[in-house]
Amino acid sequence: MKVVVCGVGLIGGSIGLAARRRLEAEVIGFDPAHDAVTQALRLGALTGGAESVAEAVKGADIVFCAAPVGYLPALVAEALEASSYDTVVSDVGSTKRELVEGLAGHPDAGRFIGGHPIAGAETAGVENARAELFEGARWYLTPGGQAGGVHYDRIQRAVADLGARPQAIDPELHDRLMATVSHLPHVIANVMVSQAEVAISEEAERLPEVGRSFRDTTRVAGANPQIWKDIFTSNSEAVAAEIDRAVERLREAAALIRAGDPGAVEAWQSRALAARDRLLETSGAGGILCELRVAVENKPGVVAEIALALGREGVNIEDMALQPAADMRTGAISLWVAGEADAKRAVEVMRGLGHTAAPAGSSA
Amino acid sequence: MKVVVCGVGLIGGSIGLAARRRLEAEVIGFDPAHDAVTQALRLGALTGGAESVAEAVKGADIVFCAAPVGYLPALVAEALEASSYDTVVSDVGSTKRELVEGLAGHPDAGRFIGGHPIAGAETAGVENARAELFEGARWYLTPGGQAGGVHYDRIQRAVADLGARPQAIDPELHDRLMATVSHLPHVIANVMVSQAEVAISEEAERLPEVGRSFRDTTRVAGANPQIWKDIFTSNSEAVAAEIDRAVERLREAAALIRAGDPGAVEAWQSRALAARDRLLETSGAGGILCELRVAVENKPGVVAEIALALGREGVNIEDMALQPAADMRTGAISLWVAGEADAKRAVEVMRGLGHTAAPAGSSA
Repeated sequence: MKVVVCGVGLIGGSIGLAARRRLEAEVIGFDPAHDAVTQALRLGALTGGAESVAEAVKGADIVFCAAPVGYLPALVAEALEASSYDTVVSDVGSTKRELVEGLAGHPDAGRFIGGHPIAGAETAGVENARAELFEGARWYLTPGGQAGGVHYDRIQRAVADLGARPQAIDPELHDRLMATVSHLPHVIANVMVSQAEVAISEEAERLPEVGRSFRDTTRVAGANPQIWKDIFTSNSEAVAAEIDRAVERLREAAALIRAGDPGAVEAWQSRALAARDRLLETSGAGGILCELRVAVENKPGVVAEIALALGREGVNIEDMALQPAADMRTGAISLWVAGEADAKRAVEVMRGLGHTAAPAGSSA
Repeated sequence: MKVVVCGVGLIGGSIGLAARRRLEAEVIGFDPAHDAVTQALRLGALTGGAESVAEAVKGADIVFCAAPVGYLPALVAEALEASSYDTVVSDVGSTKRELVEGLAGHPDAGRFIGGHPIAGAETAGVENARAELFEGARWYLTPGGQAGGVHYDRIQRAVADLGARPQAIDPELHDRLMATVSHLPHVIANVMVSQAEVAISEEAERLPEVGRSFRDTTRVAGANPQIWKDIFTSNSEAVAAEIDRAVERLREAAALIRAGDPGAVEAWQSRALAARDRLLETSGAGGILCELRVAVENKPGVVAEIALALGREGVNIEDMALQPAADMRTGAISLWVAGEADAKRAVEVMRGLGHTAAPAGSSA
């Protein structure tokens, strides 16, 4: 099998590593940055490099276009035009509708199956590529109306063979869902930091201690502007609609809070708690994540001690957040573990270490 | 010195422990739940219990009212009425304006100095009390116009002696700042989970993988409904105004994204990045927090190995977030360390362990 990656970064490089290791494929790479190809060859992510898209895609079974979203329409068209009927062309972009619609009239559109692996946001660059990147990850595929069955079958198998879990989805639905669970949180984070900055400069000489809730909500504020410029503009309709809905809900929340009925506010808060539990319950592979809070001294070694002790008991930490106190000397650790049995065990382990630990449900 | 805590939970109990250890004070506690007093006595957080507020506050130098926000107006009034001119009465509630204004006409209002320690949100209950809870924490004090100098001086010293960093602030400004950095993030989290739940049930049979940004933004959704009912209703004006401002900014964001000018979107994203950096730069005691991302297998022991290795190098982990992949077997860890020197050292340590690690600035 011949696999081609056009764009050799974290995703392209990881596809190369996984395709070589798991599909025993020949992997040819093209990237306008020659260094990336050289480095990918050195890392074993490619079996060969090409000087152009046309050279790379010749005789390919699958071409993955792994360039930034803004470059994809031109790159995919070029790959389609330079390849033959036997080649299926895909991509790994974070938004799908615009790309798929742009190719609608294309004579070779049936050979294009859009894709989006939910993996790899944590680092960039081919130097961080790894064969396991897609292990167990959702990989959306967006076959258009003209998509050939043989082509869809090939990309679907390849994606599964790379270790991912392929799922076909309508490109518009894909973009709407991404707007909900990824793009809107980024917009909100941006809005929050701008608003806090203005409020604080207008109202206070000194910044108040920025709490955990603020840090969590704004963690992705201003995420890679070049990548997010493309995501927001290529998914502008769905993102803007999602913002409109958030505006509507926020206005309802403001009205509820202004009305000042404690019972209604408490019911609203309880509904949010239930919604959060249902969302997290269904989204993780490991069942309900239980949160524990542990009061600790914030010094080197504390996290290690806790993690080691839990590891010895076979309790896996699915997620963790440290909340240092203002002096950075004391603080608390939130741990999420899968399932109530593990949570109980974890509380016992923490208490055995002399820490005060409690399930998080009992507090604010 | 005689210190009284009315309400013996996490905060009241911790005040008791710290006051006994650091002020060598006599600490008398009252709580309508007798068990809490019994447990606090057993833990050494109190030197004695009282059957009523009036009995407790007799001859007190300082009374801390540490009940839920909704009970504070009545409790503070009772403590003022039952105590003499020598007693300063304070509280530890998360909102201040309503309480202070409610006491404005009270003949003893000059002996009340409102307070709010930024500590203790992580656990609840006297069983989690600890003497170090306030170590280095900001402790806001809101003296009213009638506040006596000798009373302010006494509470200010006591708070500092408990290990905290007292700061006087106008009650209304306090509530506005809290609305910005704490209450609004909670409202947003609630809105996000409700919106996601509706979107997902309407549009998809299966929940898409909920990403890190969504999890971060919604982590505090539905936080303790009983406590937050009080916070939202007692700070309703400031919170609603803050929501209004967020609505305005979100509408601007929607218009910007709808307009679809990539340059304008990128500039907006970059401004958010700069605002976030400025906010976090000034908020931590330890200088700029640098984020590193490390790709790891998500198995027991990995976090321990990393934390131990960093601890050996003297690098303290200020904050940490795990992003497990969908299969819960692989994932990435974000680490925040203080200062660029530590960040560089941490990257080397991670690479020495065979992990791919990079500063987070380079990615989405």
